[in-house]
Amino acid sequence: MIYFDNAATTYPKPESVYNEMDKFYREYGVNAGRGSYQVANEASRLIDETREKVASVLNVKQNKEIVFTESATIAINLILKGLDWNKGDVVYYSPFEHNAVLRSLYYLKDKYNLKLRQIPVEEDSLEFKLDKLKQMFIKETPRLVAVSHVSNVCGLIAPVEQIAKLAREYNSSVLVDGAQGAGLVDVNLEHVDYYVWTGHKTFYGPFGIAGIIMDENAEEPATLIHGGTGRASERKNMPQQIPVKYEAGSSNIQAIAGLNTALEWLQEKDIETIFKHEKELTQELIAMLNEFMEIDIFIPDNLENHFNVVSVSVSGYSPHNIGKILDEKFNIAVRTGLHCAPETHEFLGTMPNGLVRFSIGYFNDKNNINNLKDALNDFLI
Amino acid sequence: MIYFDNAATTYPKPESVYNEMDKFYREYGVNAGRGSYQVANEASRLIDETREKVASVLNVKQNKEIVFTESATIAINLILKGLDWNKGDVVYYSPFEHNAVLRSLYYLKDKYNLKLRQIPVEEDSLEFKLDKLKQMFIKETPRLVAVSHVSNVCGLIAPVEQIAKLAREYNSSVLVDGAQGAGLVDVNLEHVDYYVWTGHKTFYGPFGIAGIIMDENAEEPATLIHGGTGRASERKNMPQQIPVKYEAGSSNIQAIAGLNTALEWLQEKDIETIFKHEKELTQELIAMLNEFMEIDIFIPDNLENHFNVVSVSVSGYSPHNIGKILDEKFNIAVRTGLHCAPETHEFLGTMPNGLVRFSIGYFNDKNNINNLKDALNDFLI
Repeated sequence: MIYFDNAATTYPKPESVYNEMDKFYREYGVNAGRGSYQVANEASRLIDETREKVASVLNVKQNKEIVFTESATIAINLILKGLDWNKGDVVYYSPFEHNAVLRSLYYLKDKYNLKLRQIPVEEDSLEFKLDKLKQMFIKETPRLVAVSHVSNVCGLIAPVEQIAKLAREYNSSVLVDGAQGAGLVDVNLEHVDYYVWTGHKTFYGPFGIAGIIMDENAEEPATLIHGGTGRASERKNMPQQIPVKYEAGSSNIQAIAGLNTALEWLQEKDIETIFKHEKELTQELIAMLNEFMEIDIFIPDNLENHFNVVSVSVSGYSPHNIGKILDEKFNIAVRTGLHCAPETHEFLGTMPNGLVRFSIGYFNDKNNINNLKDALNDFLI
Repeated sequence: MIYFDNAATTYPKPESVYNEMDKFYREYGVNAGRGSYQVANEASRLIDETREKVASVLNVKQNKEIVFTESATIAINLILKGLDWNKGDVVYYSPFEHNAVLRSLYYLKDKYNLKLRQIPVEEDSLEFKLDKLKQMFIKETPRLVAVSHVSNVCGLIAPVEQIAKLAREYNSSVLVDGAQGAGLVDVNLEHVDYYVWTGHKTFYGPFGIAGIIMDENAEEPATLIHGGTGRASERKNMPQQIPVKYEAGSSNIQAIAGLNTALEWLQEKDIETIFKHEKELTQELIAMLNEFMEIDIFIPDNLENHFNVVSVSVSGYSPHNIGKILDEKFNIAVRTGLHCAPETHEFLGTMPNGLVRFSIGYFNDKNNINNLKDALNDFLI
């Protein structure tokens, strides 16, 4: 299989991730707990160490908390549903949000009569219109601004730092969905209240572990999931310390061991090197796709703001059919349709069928691009 | 390590679980999705097959839905917080509930002014008083009855079938927390609306996969976690079909592969054989502990209603100290304290320090019991 679906989950994982995850789970696969027995203490130690590695890879400073959740979706739900909403609060969100954000916001809109406002973006260039956004903030003060760090459809890197800084001027909370870029795409989290990441994408770890980088001064969302915390068990309510307040239930020590190893791999291999490799391959992919008259590419004009995801339409074919041909005839894996980001496709004018998405990972190489080119040549010309 | 903490998570797992989980994740570790590419289809097929195996191991009939969640804690939150509560609704729950149930109920009590009533249990014998429960139901009609299938502190098997049948007579919903017994302890789910199970305990699978056996006629809880569902992405709300309504986010295909193999192992090894092995070892453990004058055992009088968890107090020692000695001097792993079940300890009169818990798994043997005996002999006499 030639795998161009890294935006859904990076595949394969580094060899060390598979190995260490298996090894750790065999040797220390117990329910973590400080002050229990040695192996449980070791599992706890690994959890603490992994938090530190997440902070290190994301260049997080002292004033942030590292919360673990089972998935980025759960992390986003925790934040959005845990805020102390008032009726009529105004939420700004980018056109590039995933359904984890969108469906949560629509649920909250019904419940609290929220006013949802799309952040303005220039349709052709995909430039964020920050001046216009400021005008909108003046007119309707933001309660929350939610931005996808990297679009899972068009690879657009949002100007997170500028948006967050602007939002802070209006005392707004800021949520950045970093699922598609965390670890690889540099980001300054100074003004970001909640940065959501996941283990199984650009961190090159496994499913089952994700979380939030939460600013110490951020509004503390209410607990979403109540349950056992392994300490202060006599309390009828959840302990209020972060992160324990958000981490009810058994820790998935296998997934955390996998993430730990993945973060080590990222740092040993060097994040910049990985980023550069993916960036260069993406450029080759774009250049190759540009050779085909039938193909329209949906990426920002300024490729400085673009990373590793390239979605296209092919005239004469539905996205689904392109996916089917590439899969069945050439064993090339892509993801077609709406990519759980319907408003992105509304914005791009590609509803209801969506696009064909190619997404690059570290384990792709030039041969993969050439193979894709041969495949396209085979049936397009 | 001699491992007596199987009630926290069974350890080790069957060799095939480690092997197949690693193998499947290496070969098919993508984001599942029907109608995508072959490997993603294969991941989807595994998910469907695993649902069927869960149903098969639990002897589930046609009229039940198999919902996957990331943990039993999330499953319990989904159900309890998703019900359409009215102010003043009456909830009955057993004295043996875990904090996933208790803390959720206390949260809901504050929100909806729920009346929480403990199901009466005879203090010495640990017999459920069903006649008295019926009187209580007549006086205050139950809206929900929540029962732990097997107590994680005293191994008491609740009379689930009788309680559920009685509750149904009063049109109450019935939630059974099967985290401690699912797969091994036989249960008739006919009158149970929601049976919660987890992969990493008596199913002998990994962390990261759990779920609900939901009756087709049960009240459908509202969605707790909103997000992407890989289909019907254009909808602003979650698709309303079960299970997709409750399964937002990427499927943890590695954990599901582990569970799949574990369920296969259970069936091949024969569930009755495993149950019998654990039951017999537990009896030996009890007999051995009974030899010590200093030790008080907290189990039901009728050992027909008991499974694989034995908690004790030791006169002259705090539970914590017993755990510490067993760990540090003898490398024996037990779990001490409150076991995230504070009301069980209130009921047993063992607050605030709790008990020392020994919990048996399939991979324990007679030697383990003898080693524990030697250790206890070493410092108790």
